[in-house]
Amino acid sequence: MDLLIVGSVAVDSIETPFGRADNVLGGSATYASIAASYFASPGIVGVVGDDFARKHINLLKKRGVDLEGLQIEPGGKTFHWSGYYEGDMNQAHSRSTCLNVFESFHPRLPERYRRAPFVLLGNIHPALQLEVLEQMKSPRLILCDTMNLWIETEPKLLEEVFRRVDIVCINDSEAGQFCGTSSIPQAADRLLRLGLRRVIIKRGSHGVSIFGRHSFFSLPAVPLPEVKDPTGAGDSFAGGFIGRMARSRTINENAFRRGLAAGTVMASFCVEDFSCRKTADLTNQEINDRAAALKKSVRLPLIGLI
Amino acid sequence: MDLLIVGSVAVDSIETPFGRADNVLGGSATYASIAASYFASPGIVGVVGDDFARKHINLLKKRGVDLEGLQIEPGGKTFHWSGYYEGDMNQAHSRSTCLNVFESFHPRLPERYRRAPFVLLGNIHPALQLEVLEQMKSPRLILCDTMNLWIETEPKLLEEVFRRVDIVCINDSEAGQFCGTSSIPQAADRLLRLGLRRVIIKRGSHGVSIFGRHSFFSLPAVPLPEVKDPTGAGDSFAGGFIGRMARSRTINENAFRRGLAAGTVMASFCVEDFSCRKTADLTNQEINDRAAALKKSVRLPLIGLI
Repeated sequence: MDLLIVGSVAVDSIETPFGRADNVLGGSATYASIAASYFASPGIVGVVGDDFARKHINLLKKRGVDLEGLQIEPGGKTFHWSGYYEGDMNQAHSRSTCLNVFESFHPRLPERYRRAPFVLLGNIHPALQLEVLEQMKSPRLILCDTMNLWIETEPKLLEEVFRRVDIVCINDSEAGQFCGTSSIPQAADRLLRLGLRRVIIKRGSHGVSIFGRHSFFSLPAVPLPEVKDPTGAGDSFAGGFIGRMARSRTINENAFRRGLAAGTVMASFCVEDFSCRKTADLTNQEINDRAAALKKSVRLPLIGLI
Repeated sequence: MDLLIVGSVAVDSIETPFGRADNVLGGSATYASIAASYFASPGIVGVVGDDFARKHINLLKKRGVDLEGLQIEPGGKTFHWSGYYEGDMNQAHSRSTCLNVFESFHPRLPERYRRAPFVLLGNIHPALQLEVLEQMKSPRLILCDTMNLWIETEPKLLEEVFRRVDIVCINDSEAGQFCGTSSIPQAADRLLRLGLRRVIIKRGSHGVSIFGRHSFFSLPAVPLPEVKDPTGAGDSFAGGFIGRMARSRTINENAFRRGLAAGTVMASFCVEDFSCRKTADLTNQEINDRAAALKKSVRLPLIGLI
């Protein structure tokens, strides 16, 4: 276990223009840990009810995800999200959000989790993200994911989290919202001033950028003819990124760039099918092939313009 | 003269959150030819009234733009556009559009223009774009730019133009509109099926992609802390792209990629000030420096993910 992932573990019912999937495996920690499992040995901290299907547990175990930190509440019901997407599927519409056991969740880290060198604070309430940080013993790199809900309801608390992590991963519109500017470079700059080492700006189907105080790197999304279900794309990105980081000997700009590529590749697989169907069942060859295609798609043979 | 550029030559009055500029040089052919002038020898075909200020003529001449094809209508008034941008400046709002001499414009190509190997059909009515094509003698590469107005009002005519050119340059939303899909890869595919060699999709501040039947390349926009005036960014991109192509010995994927970089660099300079103030007054060093920074921002040091 070299990578701690905290987030939701859920059961989703999803409808998109391409079909529907009911009671499938979902949640930020689920998507992230499955994506990370190709690069590192993730362990998750989260909670489910005892209604959580055995096949879901088995799928995570098969991917080598350490489940010691997954609390199973006797008599409790697992977090269930039901929602749908329309048109270009840029926005998720919730039909119902039953937090169930997640409502009173507090992350309790098993002793050996506390020394994990890499940490992903998945998209959960910033108060819970802080609780995780309190329990950690000098991790090497902490990535924090978040969403518009916490920016709107808990901006102060979220800022406190941002001040205590290394990298923040955030949507372009959310970054603008948090920083009060419509300029992405300006938003990235303001976030970096909180003491962050890097800021990752997700641009949806336009790709992703990583900003440092003196660095900038950008990747396009993998161009897919068909996106079936965007659920979990951001979590798969975060998982792929931090998983690839955990594999790097040195934490430097090159490692960040490889991480961005790994995240981009895992997010692209994620949206090709519902739930974790695609990401849970990949070969190393498939991942490397797509990474190679991605590298090819940004190769700039530039030697002087004039 | 190795590059023919057809489009509007105009006088603009522009207001943005960063200030205003009245009666400044504008128009698609103007922006494009100035951007192209650092890489090639462009000549423009367009029309102005005899009210067109001498200083505008001098600026174009100073940039080496061939003006034999610029018709000056005695007693006529130059095309004048007045507009403003708000907030994130993603959309131009027109206050007034006085076509003036441009209303009855028909492109007449001087004899030596007809053999230009490279052609940019700037953003004008597709019927006029077709008139230009009728007068050309076997050009090597034709790039066609357009806008939502023509997609809405002249889709059939526009499709005819697309069938007769090599590359189309179009916004992401316009591509979706023209092809009836919200998926950019799908839109690019449908456009390529018209017989195009490449399709360039402009993604605004998210960058630009070029799709071929078996190729895909993408570049981010240069991250700028301040965008003063987005007017002419698309035209500067198109001019930089086709200008750089005119400089290439061979028309292949590498040349297209260098073209995309040149266009990206010129568009980034364009938006840093009102009108052509910045693009008209650059050094080769400034352009090469920004191109080098752009190249650095996409360098992916990937050697195997797993």
